[in-house]
Amino acid sequence: MLPIETSTLRHLPIGQPLARIVQAALAAVAPGPLVRRALPLAEFATKPLRLLAIGKASVPMAHAALDALPDQVHTALIVTKEGEATQEWHPRTTVIAAGHPIANANSLVAGETIARSLATTAADERVLVLLSGGGSALMVLPVPGVTLSDLQQMTHLLLASGAPITAVNTVRKHLDLVKGGGLARLAYPAPIITLILSDVLGNPLDVIASGPTVPDPSTYGDTLAILERYALTERVPAAILTHLVRGTRGGWPETPKPGDAIFSHGYTTVIGDIEVAAKAALLQAQVEGFHTAILTTAMEGEAREVGRFFASIAQEMVHSGQPLPRPACLIIGGETTVTLHGTGRGGRNQEVALAMVEALAGLDRVAVLTLATDGVDGPTDAAGAVVTGTSLQRALELHCPPTDFLVRNDAMTFFDGLGDVLRIGPTSTNVNDLTFIVTW
Amino acid sequence: MLPIETSTLRHLPIGQPLARIVQAALAAVAPGPLVRRALPLAEFATKPLRLLAIGKASVPMAHAALDALPDQVHTALIVTKEGEATQEWHPRTTVIAAGHPIANANSLVAGETIARSLATTAADERVLVLLSGGGSALMVLPVPGVTLSDLQQMTHLLLASGAPITAVNTVRKHLDLVKGGGLARLAYPAPIITLILSDVLGNPLDVIASGPTVPDPSTYGDTLAILERYALTERVPAAILTHLVRGTRGGWPETPKPGDAIFSHGYTTVIGDIEVAAKAALLQAQVEGFHTAILTTAMEGEAREVGRFFASIAQEMVHSGQPLPRPACLIIGGETTVTLHGTGRGGRNQEVALAMVEALAGLDRVAVLTLATDGVDGPTDAAGAVVTGTSLQRALELHCPPTDFLVRNDAMTFFDGLGDVLRIGPTSTNVNDLTFIVTW
Repeated sequence: MLPIETSTLRHLPIGQPLARIVQAALAAVAPGPLVRRALPLAEFATKPLRLLAIGKASVPMAHAALDALPDQVHTALIVTKEGEATQEWHPRTTVIAAGHPIANANSLVAGETIARSLATTAADERVLVLLSGGGSALMVLPVPGVTLSDLQQMTHLLLASGAPITAVNTVRKHLDLVKGGGLARLAYPAPIITLILSDVLGNPLDVIASGPTVPDPSTYGDTLAILERYALTERVPAAILTHLVRGTRGGWPETPKPGDAIFSHGYTTVIGDIEVAAKAALLQAQVEGFHTAILTTAMEGEAREVGRFFASIAQEMVHSGQPLPRPACLIIGGETTVTLHGTGRGGRNQEVALAMVEALAGLDRVAVLTLATDGVDGPTDAAGAVVTGTSLQRALELHCPPTDFLVRNDAMTFFDGLGDVLRIGPTSTNVNDLTFIVTW
Repeated sequence: MLPIETSTLRHLPIGQPLARIVQAALAAVAPGPLVRRALPLAEFATKPLRLLAIGKASVPMAHAALDALPDQVHTALIVTKEGEATQEWHPRTTVIAAGHPIANANSLVAGETIARSLATTAADERVLVLLSGGGSALMVLPVPGVTLSDLQQMTHLLLASGAPITAVNTVRKHLDLVKGGGLARLAYPAPIITLILSDVLGNPLDVIASGPTVPDPSTYGDTLAILERYALTERVPAAILTHLVRGTRGGWPETPKPGDAIFSHGYTTVIGDIEVAAKAALLQAQVEGFHTAILTTAMEGEAREVGRFFASIAQEMVHSGQPLPRPACLIIGGETTVTLHGTGRGGRNQEVALAMVEALAGLDRVAVLTLATDGVDGPTDAAGAVVTGTSLQRALELHCPPTDFLVRNDAMTFFDGLGDVLRIGPTSTNVNDLTFIVTW
C-alpha cells in the first residue's frame, strides 16, 4: 500500500478512510490488471503477436501482456520515459527510454525501430499496441526533410504558446510517419489491437499519444490555421512550414482518414481513464460510510481559479450540508493548467490546494486532498497536497502567508513547511488528477 | 409572474418547471416581504423615525417600511437606480434616481441630501437604513478636493481591471464621506438600525453598499496596495492619489474603525441574500420532482473559467448521472467577474453561458440557465441566457462561432441571435447570480 498521508492527515479521524479511498482509485487504474483483464480475447489464442508498448505506463502494461500471453509474443518493443525501469526482462524484448515532453534522439530511435520492425509484419500476425500518455514525444519519425531538431523547436513553441494538446498533436500528426494513423499504415495488412490508458480528458482516440493507430480527422489546412492562431507561422523552422504547405497542395499524402481500408481490421479500446479511477473512489467512499458523488471527471481551467471554486464548495458543505451532508466525500477528476508567474517549486495539484488555504481558514471538520494519479505533480517529487481549516493559522505561525507563495508559484515550499505535501512516488499509471473534498 | 423563458426553453419539457424554480428563488428575496418580516421590533414602537433607503431595491424596501410604520416615519429619503419607479407616493418622501454602476450627478445629490438631512438628527430619533446592492454608486459624497468626475474615472478603471468588489469598495470608502461608516458618523448620536439585502458573497457588512453604517476595517494603506496590484497607481486621477497618500500620512482622518463610540447604539442585520434564494430554489426543485442540490452559494472567479467548469459538471451529469441522476437540478449561487477584452454587449451571466456552448454541444436533455437576480446582467437589458446541447449547431447555422463572440465579450449579441437571451426586466431585488444545471 502506498503511503497516502501527510502529517496533518495522520491526525484527522478521516485520515485512514481517505487514504483507502485514494488507494482504491489508484488501484483501479493500475496498468497491469487493466491489460490482463482486456487480453483473454479470441484473436490472441493462436496468432503470433508483435507487441508495441508506448507511453509512460508501457513497462507495467507490457509486463502484464507478456505474463498473460507468454508463448504468442515473438517480439516486444517497449518505449518508455527516461528514468523509468528499463531492464530487458524478457528474451524477445527491447526497451527504449526516450524524452518527454520534448522528443529526443532516443525518441527517433524508437520511431525508426518500430518502422523497421513493422516492415516485416505478416498478414496472419497481430500487432498489439499498448498506449499510454506521453507517446507523442517518446516515439517520433519525422517526414522526409524535417529533422528531430525541427520537431523539438516546434513542440517547444507550441507548448509555450498555451495551445491545447489537441492542437499540438494535430500539428505533430502531419509531420510524423508514426502518428495520426501512421503506425496502422506501417503495420498493414496485419490487424492492430490497441489498448489505451487515457490521460486526455474525454478520451479522444486521435489525440492520445497523437493517435498512431486510429484515423486522423484533421488536415494540413488545420495545421496552418493552428500556427496562425498562435502566431507561430513565422517562428517555426522553415522545413516544417514547407512541409505543411506542400501537404495542403497535395504534394504529400494526408494522414489516413476515417473509412480508410487500413482500419478495417482490428480495434481500439480504452481500458482505463480518470472516470474509472473516480468511480472506484466513489465505491470505496460509500463503503467507508461517506455521502459521496462525482462532481465531474472533466474539470479543467487555471489552477488557482479552480481552487477558488473548490473552496466555495467546501464552504457550502460546511455551512449548509449542500451538496452533500456530513460525512461527505466529493470527488472531482480532470486536469488544471498553471500559467507560470514565478519560479517557485510546485505543480498544478499543489497550486489548486494553495489557492484554497485562505478560504478554508477556520472551517471545522473539512479537508481537501489533491492528487496527480501518476504521483508526479509538475516538475516535483510530490503528488499533491492536503488543506484543512487549520492550514492558514499554522502557515502564519511559520510566517508563510499563502498569497506570497501563490504569487511565486511556490506551492511545494509552502506545503513542505506545513508537512502537508503528499508524496507517494511514481505510480506507473497516469489518468490525470483527482481532488477529494471531505467533511466528517 | 415574470416571463422566465426563451425561445429554446419554451420547447423543452422542463421549461415550465425550471421557470417555477427561478420564480421561487426570486420570490424568496422580494424586498417588501423581507422588510415587513424584520420590522415589528420594540424600538420602532414609539420613536420618531428617519428612513433612508439606498440601493437598487430601495423603492420596494421603503414601501414595506412605510406601510408597516406609517405614523413613525417623519422623513423618508429613497435613493434608487435610474429607470426604477420614482413617483413620490408618500407625503414625507423624497426619491432620487441616480447612476449605476458608475455614480452620476444625482448620486452626488443623494449624498448631499442625506448629509444635510442627518445634520438635523436628534438623539431621541431612530435612523432606519434599508440597504441593498448598488448603494456604492447611487450615493456619493466625495472628500474635499476630489470631484465626481474623479470618482467616475477611478471606478471605471477599477471595474475594468477585474478587481473584486471588496477591493473596489475599499478604495471607494476612503474617498467618500458617506461610505465606510461615514453615514453613522453623520447620524451620531441617533442610533441606526440597518436592514440589508445583501448582494456581496458571504455578506461582509463593510463591503455591501460600501458599508455606510458599519465600522471599516480597511485602511488608506490598503487602498494604495490595491491600486498598485491592479497597476492603476499612475492611471487614477491625480486628486485621488493625492488624497489617498495624504490619508496614509495621517493628513486626513481614517474611516471609523471597529470599537468606535458611534457604533455603540443600533445594529445591522441581513434580511436576504443569495443563500435564501438558493434554498427556495432547492425546495421548489424538490417539489417539481428533480434530484437537487446546492453546489455552492459563494461561487466566484473569471466568468469564462467558471463556465468551463460548469460545462464539465453538465457533461458528467449527462454521461454518468453524477453528481445527480436525471432528472436533476443543480443550483449554484455567487457572482463571477469579467475581464474585458472586447467591446461587445454582454454581462457576466451571459458570458458564463457563452463559455459553455461548445462543451455542451450534442449533449442530450441538458439545459443551463444563468441569471442575475436583479434582472440586469452587466450593462444590458437581459438577466442571463440559456444554453443546451443544440446551441452550438444553431449558432453555426447562423455563422456565429461562439469563440468569436467570447473574444469580443459579445455574449448578448450571440444569444440574441439564437433567441436565448433571458429577459425578465428589473426584479427590484439583487442578491447576485444563480445558475441552474438541469437534466431530464
